[in-house]
Parts: sequence; C-alpha cells; structure tokens
Amino acid sequence: MSFGPYRPALHQRIRSGGVGDTSSRRQGRKKDEDDGLRVFFFCTLWLFLSQIISSITLSDLLPAKNGEEPTIQFLLELVDILTNYVKKTFDRSTKVLDFHHPHQLLEGMEGFNLELSDQPESLEQILVDCRDTLKYGVRTGHPRFFNQLSTGLDIIGLAGEWLTSTANTNMFTYEIAPVFVLMEQLTLKKMREMIGWPNGEGDGLFSPGGAISNMYSVMIARYKYFPEVKTKGMSAAPRLVLFTSEHSHYSIKKAGAALGFGTENVILLSTDERGRVIPADLEAKIIDAKQKGCVPLFVNATGGSTVYGAFDPINEIADICEKYNLWLHVDRGAEDLGLRGEEQNIHVIEFLPLQCSAILVRDKGILAGCNSMCAGYLFQPDKQYDVTYDTGDKAIQCGRHVDIFKFWLMWKAKGTIGFEQHIDKCLDLSQYLYNKIKNREGYEMVFNGEPQHTNVCFWYLPQSLRGMPDGDERREKLHRVAPKIKAMMMESGTTMVGYQPQGNKVNFFRMVISNPAATQSDIDFLIDEIERLGHDL
Amino acid sequence: MSFGPYRPALHQRIRSGGVGDTSSRRQGRKKDEDDGLRVFFFCTLWLFLSQIISSITLSDLLPAKNGEEPTIQFLLELVDILTNYVKKTFDRSTKVLDFHHPHQLLEGMEGFNLELSDQPESLEQILVDCRDTLKYGVRTGHPRFFNQLSTGLDIIGLAGEWLTSTANTNMFTYEIAPVFVLMEQLTLKKMREMIGWPNGEGDGLFSPGGAISNMYSVMIARYKYFPEVKTKGMSAAPRLVLFTSEHSHYSIKKAGAALGFGTENVILLSTDERGRVIPADLEAKIIDAKQKGCVPLFVNATGGSTVYGAFDPINEIADICEKYNLWLHVDRGAEDLGLRGEEQNIHVIEFLPLQCSAILVRDKGILAGCNSMCAGYLFQPDKQYDVTYDTGDKAIQCGRHVDIFKFWLMWKAKGTIGFEQHIDKCLDLSQYLYNKIKNREGYEMVFNGEPQHTNVCFWYLPQSLRGMPDGDERREKLHRVAPKIKAMMMESGTTMVGYQPQGNKVNFFRMVISNPAATQSDIDFLIDEIERLGHDL
Repeated sequence: MSFGPYRPALHQRIRSGGVGDTSSRRQGRKKDEDDGLRVFFFCTLWLFLSQIISSITLSDLLPAKNGEEPTIQFLLELVDILTNYVKKTFDRSTKVLDFHHPHQLLEGMEGFNLELSDQPESLEQILVDCRDTLKYGVRTGHPRFFNQLSTGLDIIGLAGEWLTSTANTNMFTYEIAPVFVLMEQLTLKKMREMIGWPNGEGDGLFSPGGAISNMYSVMIARYKYFPEVKTKGMSAAPRLVLFTSEHSHYSIKKAGAALGFGTENVILLSTDERGRVIPADLEAKIIDAKQKGCVPLFVNATGGSTVYGAFDPINEIADICEKYNLWLHVDRGAEDLGLRGEEQNIHVIEFLPLQCSAILVRDKGILAGCNSMCAGYLFQPDKQYDVTYDTGDKAIQCGRHVDIFKFWLMWKAKGTIGFEQHIDKCLDLSQYLYNKIKNREGYEMVFNGEPQHTNVCFWYLPQSLRGMPDGDERREKLHRVAPKIKAMMMESGTTMVGYQPQGNKVNFFRMVISNPAATQSDIDFLIDEIERLGHDL
Repeated sequence: MSFGPYRPALHQRIRSGGVGDTSSRRQGRKKDEDDGLRVFFFCTLWLFLSQIISSITLSDLLPAKNGEEPTIQFLLELVDILTNYVKKTFDRSTKVLDFHHPHQLLEGMEGFNLELSDQPESLEQILVDCRDTLKYGVRTGHPRFFNQLSTGLDIIGLAGEWLTSTANTNMFTYEIAPVFVLMEQLTLKKMREMIGWPNGEGDGLFSPGGAISNMYSVMIARYKYFPEVKTKGMSAAPRLVLFTSEHSHYSIKKAGAALGFGTENVILLSTDERGRVIPADLEAKIIDAKQKGCVPLFVNATGGSTVYGAFDPINEIADICEKYNLWLHVDRGAEDLGLRGEEQNIHVIEFLPLQCSAILVRDKGILAGCNSMCAGYLFQPDKQYDVTYDTGDKAIQCGRHVDIFKFWLMWKAKGTIGFEQHIDKCLDLSQYLYNKIKNREGYEMVFNGEPQHTNVCFWYLPQSLRGMPDGDERREKLHRVAPKIKAMMMESGTTMVGYQPQGNKVNFFRMVISNPAATQSDIDFLIDEIERLGHDL
C-alpha cells in the first residue's frame, strides 16, 4: 500500500478519543452484568481495526474482487470516528466549536490540508481528514448550540440519513425509489390530516428547504390564477403583487425576484409590537395596489416568524384573502403541526437533520399542472405499474434527494406523541428563559409579553450602558454589544446564539430553542456566559 | 422496554444476513494470518449486539443521561444492516430489486407497515423497518443497475455522506460550516481551473441538482442583461427568449416556466442525426426571434446530452453568442471536466452520491447580485471574521445541505487521476457495448457512429419483427418492445436499463454507463437478458 504523509500521526490521533477510550463509556453502563463483555468487545474492536486499517488501500474497496472485508473495515473505522464525535457532541465539557479564521484554515492546520491534488491520498489519511473535518467544524448538536438553523442531533434522524445515503436513490420515479415514494405520499397525507384538511386530501412534495417550498407556493398561486404564464411568461399576466409581513422570511422576496415578479411587487405588511401582521394593513394595501392597477395575487402568513416567533392572525387574513380572492400561503415550522390550519398551502421546516421541508397544497393536480414537462426519457407513460406514483414531474428539480426517510423513521420511533413532547419541552424552555431574564438586571426584552413560540429576543446591557439615557449614543453602543459577545463566545467555544437588528431595533440576541439536548442548566449557562463576557464591555 | 409487535421475527431477520453471516466474508480474505482474528471479531460483535439491542429503548439514547453506550450500540446495529446491504449490493447473485406494485407495498409486506401512528415503535422494530426499507428498494449500486439517474455506490462518497449527516450543518454561513464552506470554495476554484478559466477566477455554488443549476444559469443571464428585473419583475424587460437543443434536458424548459419567461419563449434548436445542435439553425432562430420583436437572451449548449450523449459544437455556438451578445450556458456532466471550456457558465452532474451539482460562473459578483436579499438575521455584516465567506445569500435556498464534502473526500481519495480513470473506464465499456451490438442480429442503432459519450441507444427487435417492412405496424410493435422487456427485467429483478422515445423515434433502450462496479461481463449479461426476455415477443 502507499502510505500517506501523516501515517505516524494517524495512529496517535485515531487512538486519542478512539474506541479504546472506554473511560467515559463506562459511566454509561446500566447493567453491571454486561460490563465484562462490553470492555472485551471494545478492546477487540479497537485492536482489530488498528491492525487492519493500515493495510487497506482504495483499490481494495468494493467493487474490487474480495472487497467486502476491506470495505466493511474501512466503514467501521469511519463509524468509530463518527460515534466518538456524536458521543462528545453531547458532552458539555466538549467545546461547541474550535474557532479559526478562514485564512487560518486555508493555510492548513497541523496537517489538515484542504487543497485537492492529482494524486490520491491513502485511506489512512482520508480517515484523518474525516476526523479533522469534524474537529474544525461546529457541533450543531451540542446542548449549548442555540444558533440558527439546525440545532440538535437526533439519533434516529441520523440513522435515517445513514440509510438514505446507503440506498443512494432518487425520488423522481417509483421505479427506482418505490419505498421512499410511498413513504413520502403517506407522510404528506398524514400531515394534511393533522392540519385538518378533510380526509387528508390534497397534494404535496418535499423540497430542498423552506425557501424553495415558499418559492413553490408563489409558483402555484400564479399557476392557479394565471395558468397561461407557464407557456407565455409573465407578459401574459397583469402586474401581480405579493403580500408578506415585514417580519417574514426573506425567501418570499427572493422568490419574487427569481420568479419574475420583482421585489418591488412584494409588498411588506406592517406588524404590531409583537411582529404580527395587522390585518387592516393588509386590506388597505390590497385596495391600494388595485387602485394602482396591480393585481393582488398571494398572501404569505407566517406561523412562527423567523426572528420574533410571531403568529400572524391567520383567520382574519384568511377572511381577507377570501374577500379579495387571493391565494393564502402559510409559512411555518413543524412546531405547530396539528394545532390549526384551514389555509391553502403550508410548508414545514423541521427540527430534523437538514434538509427536510414540505409544501402541502389543497388542490390535487396543481403541482403537476404547474411544473410538469412530461420528459419522455424519465416519465414514460407505458410502464407496468401505476405511474401516478412517478411524482418527479411535479418538482422543479429533476434528481431529488430522499429527504423523507429520516422524517418517516423519526415519526415511527417517536410517534406523534413524541413530536408533541419535543415541542412542549422547547416551549417550556423558552418560557423558562423568558421568566429568568424578563426582570433581571441588565436585560431588556425586545417586545413585551410571554413568548408565542420558542423565540426569546432580548438585549443584554453591559454595566456601562445601564442607566444611560436613550439616544443615539446608547443605541450605537448597544448595537455593538451583541456582536462583541457573540465573537467572544465563538472564540471561547462555549456556546453560540444568534443576534440581529430588526427594523429600527439595534442588534439583539435571538434565542430559538429546538435542540432536544438542551436543558434549563444550558439556558442558565448561556445567561451566565453572556454576563461573563459582556459585563465589562 | 416496550417490545414492538415483531420482536420474535427480529432476531431471526437480523441474524439472516447479519454480522454472523461470515461465509461470504471469508471468501474476501487476503491475508491468512488475519483469519482467526477476524472470525473472532465478527462473532464477538454479533454476540454482543444481539444481546444488547433488545434491551435499549428510545429514551436510553442520547441526549439521555448515560446515553453514550446505547446510542453507539444502536448505531452499530444499524451499520451492520447497512454494511450487509452494501456487501450484497456488489454481489451479482443478489437481485437488483424485488419488484412490488404500489398497492402491494401499501397493503404491507410481512410486517413492513408504512403507516405512521401516534405511538412510538420499539427500537428493535425500527431496525427491522430499516432492513425492510432496503429490502424492498432498488439497489442503484448493483453492477447491473444501468437505469437513470444515480448508478454505482462509491464507498468513499458513502463515507462522506455519513460524515455529512453526522455533522448536520448548513452551508449558509462560515459561522456554522467553516470547513465545508472553504471546501466548497476550493473545489469550485479547482473546477474552474480545470475548465481553463484563467487562475480559476469566477464564482459558483453547489445546488440541489442539475435542474436547479440550470435554473440558476437562466436567472444569472437575465440579471446580467436586465438587472432591473430583480426589483421590477419581467414587465421591466422586453419579451426575452431562450434557446436550447430539442435534445437538451427538460429542466431548461422548466426553468423558463418557473422564472416567468414561458415555455413558448424557450426555442428548441434542431439537431443533426447525432443529436448535436446545428449552429446555422441557432443563428436563423435568433434572427427570426429578433424580427418578431423578441430579445434573444440565453443559449444552453449541452456537453453530453441526456439521451444521445451528444456534444453540441460549443465553439461555433460560442461564436454566435458573441456575435449577438447572448449568454452562453453549458449544461454538462462531470465526465468531461477538464477537457475544454471557454464558456460562461457550467453546471456539473456528478457520478457521485445524490445530490451534487455545481453552477460555475465567470463573473465574480453576479450570483450575489442576482440573489442577495441581505437578511439581517443571518448575514450580519458585523461579525469578527471575513464575512465574504458567508456565501448563503448567493443561493435561492436559505438552508443549504452540505453537498460538497463527499465530492471533496472522493477527490482526495482518488486524485484527479482517479476521476479520469473512472471516466475512461466508462467510455471503454460504452465502446465495448457499441462494438458488441452494432452488427449483431436483432439490433438496430438509433444513430450511426461511435458513441461520443457513455450513452449507447439501440432498439432490440424480437424475432417476429426482424424482416418486417418499415411502416406503422412495425413502428407500433417496436414501440411496445422496450417497455415489455423492461417490465420483465424489473419483475425478474436481474438488471435495469432505461428506455424512451425521442422525437419521431419509437421507444428504444438507452444505456448510460457510469457505474464503477460494471464490467464487460455485466454488459454481456444485459444483452443476454434482453434477448432472453425479448426474443419471442
């Protein structure tokens, strides 16, 4: 075999924190009678792997003749790295990240070289690369990672993803993804039932993220009212306008730009102090748009807005949409799945492993009507099975990653009640944080009142700003506080939480709790850390 | 713990084909001195796992206190299922698929129930579900799977995907994906260098599939010439037209519909007998469009078309684009990466695990210009690091899956030369197939001449059609041959290959070779199988 340049380092690095590191595993034992067998097993595994791996090369792996064993050995070695990473991610004594600037990582860290070359590396080096990739990354599953977007590492979801990549197929036809296509159909139906659509009737699709689901919703609305745009383009329609909250996700504007509406035709709706759309403002802006000769097409309402976690008043908005014959889309997270919904379509951002988002539509044929191109090479009508299960032509993608399996598997393993419990726990933690800081010295809430969702938005005031009169100087100073604390958090690697300005409000912290590993002690830790780092700013 | 309804079946099913099944592994041994240790290891692992797994419940897994061991045990049990699947996938005595109709799978197969419920299932049942999901799926990595789209299971790519899902992060900011963001930057630069752009200058992004990359290309072209469309919509531009081959991928038309151009403004270009765009036809259609008052905007040229594998004459098309000031996009697979390219942007569909596609652009700021919305909650300008590495605002997605790592890891493990060897091998196999059937009784080639790419398109004529004079009857009968053979293939589970009509040509087989596991013997097998199943039709 050819040895990579870092061979001597490898064994040392694989061993530190490798499967031989049984000390912390020992604490996890629940049944004493298993002890001997376990230690024996791990020692055997470690001895076995460390002996074998240095003798395998790429050309030994499948599809090579007799490649089964080397392949399994290589994958087991990788799994050892991954399971160690998982184990440490949940250990609060592990750092959330080991921060380095881009130029530092680009220059190369102790043999971790990102550059690609003509010649192959050894498999030993590949395993070191895997370990280093994780080492210099961010542990989004850490109990103290509260940053956007994905937080938490669900073990069942992870198992689902490992299987998905092993199956490595494509959602476009039943032909090559029979089980996954059916899982998608059944899961979408179940979701439609839960939001209260009669018999779960309707249609839907999983898409690569909430932004794309929102884009679908605008496309569908346009197709519903102006189907000729599909063939003739936007010039076949009058000037169409879309409405969305000034607090809504930026993907609605992005969709407006991409789909040919133009961002100026995405009208932002005013909100109340809590970030909820004011229905009267929607109606006024609809009337105004009509007076200007525009045609109001679509309203996006948000069920749990990005920053404030606000719930727009869906029923009142739905009434206005009905009155003016507008399409109503609801952009919301899965957290409130099942709580309500008489609206026309919905997308769901999950607390699952990335990526997982679904667009649900009441009108059964509209996704296909809007997007199908009937490509002969893929969607042959003369197959031996029921080709209505070839759902790929509904999508704007051709190849479509299997996003459903992890979600289906998590639903199987937890049941609907498990999802509910998870959401309740996150809401409880948000309430705990809110109660902890609402009257605490040095804190100001961005808006008053209990959190509607898992978002808690607040300013932390260093000692030097407390009692300073409101005004430009205080605003400017306060604006710089959250970025400074965040930078120090990242450099110390202890925790991560998002911040941003919003409208005329200067930078504030936004806590969003969806990590199943987080507990009250982690909330306490975050607050202590903000105070430790920010007190003397 | 709570036992699922299938507990008795589990142990039996886990054991059959489980880690205890060492017989076929034994054949794989290369070093006799390792034998004793290996058998010992696998027996230990099996004994260990089968004892442990029935005592773990969901609530034992991380983030539970002392959840490390149960979590690792659960994941190892899953990995055992996955590695067995991998091993069997490469074994030619395994079926490519075990075909069932949708209604059969929906009714439930021997305890494999797709329905979701309120109550959780046991972890034992979850593992059975995982096994069954694979059992009733299609082995796209099988050496005899030649169907579209993804074929082959690359072990390094698989390892990359397992790590990606374990890291579970998002490409939108350097903040939470420092290593992956840099890997993407470096890989895109390397790709630009290889296609010959000076110093690898330019920009790019990985997207969820080639169709989305093609959509990006149309958006970028529009932004380049009519940037005001971003804010004002398509009404700010004249009637724009796009040009693409009648043989091009359907995603160009789909993008035309989605982005507000309209499919009627996607002008299809005529091709020669080999499926290559005729440059004179492009020029004539540009002139015609201008005469009709339209503004020609964009030409899509294809480097390896979907069905024929045709290479459009890029240089001549580029000359015409320059003459009329049109944007030139080249839609092509990675197979010819590095062989040529003076064109403006390119997307790449890989032979890697799904999903992996990149859009490359010469103009450095244009992706950001076209798509950025500067969402304050995500792309804060006041971070402590160089925020030009926060690339998320260039994308139409918000959350963006990490698609780069598997590609980067495969490139590391194989080197550029490894990719080249893979491509050469696929081309050789296509040539082998072509030579085998071009003069063989019962075969007709869809077009004459050596394959330009890995595509080989052909009709198989059953005995009853040979010698029948050309005409409607023969055409109708021939049209039904490929679907019939394909259906029988799927039902016998022996192999899979795509078919379709194209233009006025009735259904033919289209062989595309990208599976690294395929050999000449698999090509022979496919041909034998077509003849076995189709001879007497």
